[in-house]
Amino acid sequence: MKEFDVLCIGNAIVDIFARCDEAFLTENGIIKGAMNLIDAERAELLYGRMGPAIEASGGSAGNTAAGVASFGGRSAFFGKVSNDHLGEIYTHDIRAQGVAFDTRPLPGEPPTARSMIFVTPDGERSMNTYLGACVELGPEDVEADKASAAKVTYFEGYLWDPPRAKEAIRLTAKHAHAAGREVSMTLSDPFCVDRYRDEFLDLMRSGTVDIVFANESELKSLYQTSSLDTGLELIRKDCRLAAVTRSELGSVIVRGEETVPVEAIGISELVDTTGAGDLYAAGFLHGYTTGRSLADCGKLGSLAAGLVIQQFGARPRQSLLEEAQQRGLA
Amino acid sequence: MKEFDVLCIGNAIVDIFARCDEAFLTENGIIKGAMNLIDAERAELLYGRMGPAIEASGGSAGNTAAGVASFGGRSAFFGKVSNDHLGEIYTHDIRAQGVAFDTRPLPGEPPTARSMIFVTPDGERSMNTYLGACVELGPEDVEADKASAAKVTYFEGYLWDPPRAKEAIRLTAKHAHAAGREVSMTLSDPFCVDRYRDEFLDLMRSGTVDIVFANESELKSLYQTSSLDTGLELIRKDCRLAAVTRSELGSVIVRGEETVPVEAIGISELVDTTGAGDLYAAGFLHGYTTGRSLADCGKLGSLAAGLVIQQFGARPRQSLLEEAQQRGLA
Repeated sequence: MKEFDVLCIGNAIVDIFARCDEAFLTENGIIKGAMNLIDAERAELLYGRMGPAIEASGGSAGNTAAGVASFGGRSAFFGKVSNDHLGEIYTHDIRAQGVAFDTRPLPGEPPTARSMIFVTPDGERSMNTYLGACVELGPEDVEADKASAAKVTYFEGYLWDPPRAKEAIRLTAKHAHAAGREVSMTLSDPFCVDRYRDEFLDLMRSGTVDIVFANESELKSLYQTSSLDTGLELIRKDCRLAAVTRSELGSVIVRGEETVPVEAIGISELVDTTGAGDLYAAGFLHGYTTGRSLADCGKLGSLAAGLVIQQFGARPRQSLLEEAQQRGLA
Repeated sequence: MKEFDVLCIGNAIVDIFARCDEAFLTENGIIKGAMNLIDAERAELLYGRMGPAIEASGGSAGNTAAGVASFGGRSAFFGKVSNDHLGEIYTHDIRAQGVAFDTRPLPGEPPTARSMIFVTPDGERSMNTYLGACVELGPEDVEADKASAAKVTYFEGYLWDPPRAKEAIRLTAKHAHAAGREVSMTLSDPFCVDRYRDEFLDLMRSGTVDIVFANESELKSLYQTSSLDTGLELIRKDCRLAAVTRSELGSVIVRGEETVPVEAIGISELVDTTGAGDLYAAGFLHGYTTGRSLADCGKLGSLAAGLVIQQFGARPRQSLLEEAQQRGLA
């Protein structure tokens, strides 16, 4: 049986990027920096108002799977596309990156998911996601062999938005734990945490999830606190390992009594923050599944995140393995 | 009647970009730096071998139309897409840039054209174009009112590849000249020049084309000479005005006895040469149609070309008007 380092599960989304000014967000009622869920009608409306765009495969956990593969790790992905042109693009891109992706596509409607991502002059991205085919992901899409064969399974909190994906997650976690593997998740977005706070806490406290990725806002939202320290003290009790990212302030990793602060890498130009958290998780999990120290896991996360925010789009265009080698991190 | 500065006519193509190494080009028989025409079968084969990609609207003259609009000029475009997802993307992007685009899409097959563009580490792009719907562009697509209402009509030499586009060009030129307007073309690619040398020379010598854009290789191919000076002496006799681009050496503009050398702008990083010639033409034509000196036209061309090669993709992501203003060129 083929072994994997990381199995990622998430909404399979093609990103549509355009720049906009701050006023555009206000005028169109888009919450800045957040993932705004939209229906087909609003998707059409916003696309009509969107400037010239570029398309690139995205989706949080899909970006992480691509990042792990770019580091030379063995990654797999579960996610639902439809049998349409965007679905072809999504499938091509993730496979071309070396990720094992075999989830059966929907034969027809709804179409492959897309997220219109508006990037403001400060580099912040505001996402508007039409979930489309993602709503059909369910436990029948769990490939038990992959769930058992991956050192770590990683899924996105966003999967609590479609109706049956959580069943797929619980089933995958069961297979993984039965095989002695670990399960991790990202809290995804502070508003997403707000929607599913109790369920996320239950995932952690019940031991369904061993490792948690969050940014500072998501952590604070989870525990409804304005204090980072309070959040860190609480999360270190609720899960085995947590990595909390803090943008240009780097990240903090906590495991039991251990606390490991990690610096961000220096960047020359902030172009687009899309994918920063996803790529941090990719670097971290690549380090973790290859037996590196927590400090090194964090450094690999910082590297991948720092590189992806200096380009348009959420997936690395360079080899992360080579970048890590050049910095003596591989 | 609405007046336009520049009417552009070209193959309406969505670009699919990926990085590759030099060996990939050799192994796949792709001529480096050129536009390689491919059929549907080879398109599928190459896509299967292509790395993770990003999609963005392109096509030479479409890029020029978008560039003129980004400078604040009034531009229009004729080109053929199909009624499919790539066609929607193409139509959205060019209209969102402010370009008037009303060519009727094909109802079905062949699909909208796409070009797989492989970018090597030196920033050079090698294009592999499946023309799809573009083969259906014909004289019935000429909107006489726009042809008469544009100060300059601009078309790409690539239009000699599909079967009936040249009829559309000749008809448009007739309308334009009848209205006292000027007609310009780009020679597009040295291999394209090789395919249609006699016809291109005839367009110039018969006065169908007044203004010619070429890079140094295309000029040399046109006159089958290895000398730039020889090429410049010949082209200044064959058309009223010519601008010859020379990559980092800038450009040379010739009109009758006049010769105007123009410098390239300094760049910090060469990312992807796609669109350099198209955006040079955009800057030049924006200057030309707003009554600027030839030196200023060349500077505006250099600016737009220099900006587009510092990013992935062939269309400007920033406002060229603002960039020109910042440099005192607007």
